[in-house]
Amino acid sequence: MVVKVYGPHCASTKRVLVCLVEKEIEFEVVPVDVTKGEHKNPEYLKLQPFGVVPVIQDGDYTLYESRAIMRYYAEKYRSEGVELLGRTAEERGVVEQWLEVEAHNFNPPAYDLAVHVLFGPLLGITPDPKVAEESEAKLVKVLDVYEKRLSKSKYLGGDFFSLADISHLPFTDYIVNKMNKGYLIKDRKHVSDWWDDISSRPSWKKVIELYPPPI
Amino acid sequence: MVVKVYGPHCASTKRVLVCLVEKEIEFEVVPVDVTKGEHKNPEYLKLQPFGVVPVIQDGDYTLYESRAIMRYYAEKYRSEGVELLGRTAEERGVVEQWLEVEAHNFNPPAYDLAVHVLFGPLLGITPDPKVAEESEAKLVKVLDVYEKRLSKSKYLGGDFFSLADISHLPFTDYIVNKMNKGYLIKDRKHVSDWWDDISSRPSWKKVIELYPPPI
Repeated sequence: MVVKVYGPHCASTKRVLVCLVEKEIEFEVVPVDVTKGEHKNPEYLKLQPFGVVPVIQDGDYTLYESRAIMRYYAEKYRSEGVELLGRTAEERGVVEQWLEVEAHNFNPPAYDLAVHVLFGPLLGITPDPKVAEESEAKLVKVLDVYEKRLSKSKYLGGDFFSLADISHLPFTDYIVNKMNKGYLIKDRKHVSDWWDDISSRPSWKKVIELYPPPI
Repeated sequence: MVVKVYGPHCASTKRVLVCLVEKEIEFEVVPVDVTKGEHKNPEYLKLQPFGVVPVIQDGDYTLYESRAIMRYYAEKYRSEGVELLGRTAEERGVVEQWLEVEAHNFNPPAYDLAVHVLFGPLLGITPDPKVAEESEAKLVKVLDVYEKRLSKSKYLGGDFFSLADISHLPFTDYIVNKMNKGYLIKDRKHVSDWWDDISSRPSWKKVIELYPPPI
């Protein structure tokens, strides 16, 4: 069964796509143009009632929320492709911890920064330089914690590449390559080495080349 | 090994405590008085570098982020106590989806509402009625989706009680029992039935009685 992935050009969806490539799972994409509000169409809302991307359909099985979809495939196809959850319950616990840190500490300021520096107008939001400044200040504090973590551990979840790293790819790419704020990463040696490592994986290169962001 | 749980009186920590009770895992608590800023003390920051509760210590193993800790215990002790993740990868996928919905759709407006109606002054934040109003409006939309979901499924993750339900307990309790906003729940038949069901579980009753919120 080929997995259908909705909204491949959006940042959150790229988490799912990288995971599928790493697990060597076949997929096809269904475009959802968020700049035209297609994620709020009645047909789309039947799949995702909150009106956000991504959604996957795998036969009769429909699932949304990018980090939930990643966990599903990483667990279901544990023995295929790259192991992305760790080998033990303890290793998975740490992966889950950093997935949550990404969701609650990294992503909110990174998202707000992207909205208020980059794609606000595309979404009908007027950029507010004060929000951008505050978001960057929050991100600085978060990345200082990451620098310490990555000075002791090659990847966020441990000495292995995992879902926790994948989850950071789309918005760190925005920071470095779209917002001219690469200094946030490059000025921190271990964060910088980690970024160079994870962003040079063939899975990420493939996904970013096939499905460039809308801006 | 008895699990040490830091900050039992805080809302997020209660997710972990309910999970431990449901899994019949022995624990002891370590108070962290957030109203005195103890979560920002250097000793505490060694355990949780972002300065939030909870943290657990289980022998040499330290873990933070409430939803990550719940997943760890639900998975590690799968065959003990109540099964909280579903029996198949597909069931767990749906549990994970609703855990993410809780984290990204329900919790942010519920938290903001609680801050701006209830415990802002305790945290040094001046309540802003406009933020409270906007948060409630967001919550209304989210709960309308929940009503639809719960008209088709007894619990959020499926026909079984799971981590997805547990994760909603602390802030729904604030809404119903501390903020006089029980109408948000009671006005929706299926959400109301679900709340009556999950909040009457002995695990929740025990946790809320033993560790009442600071306000």
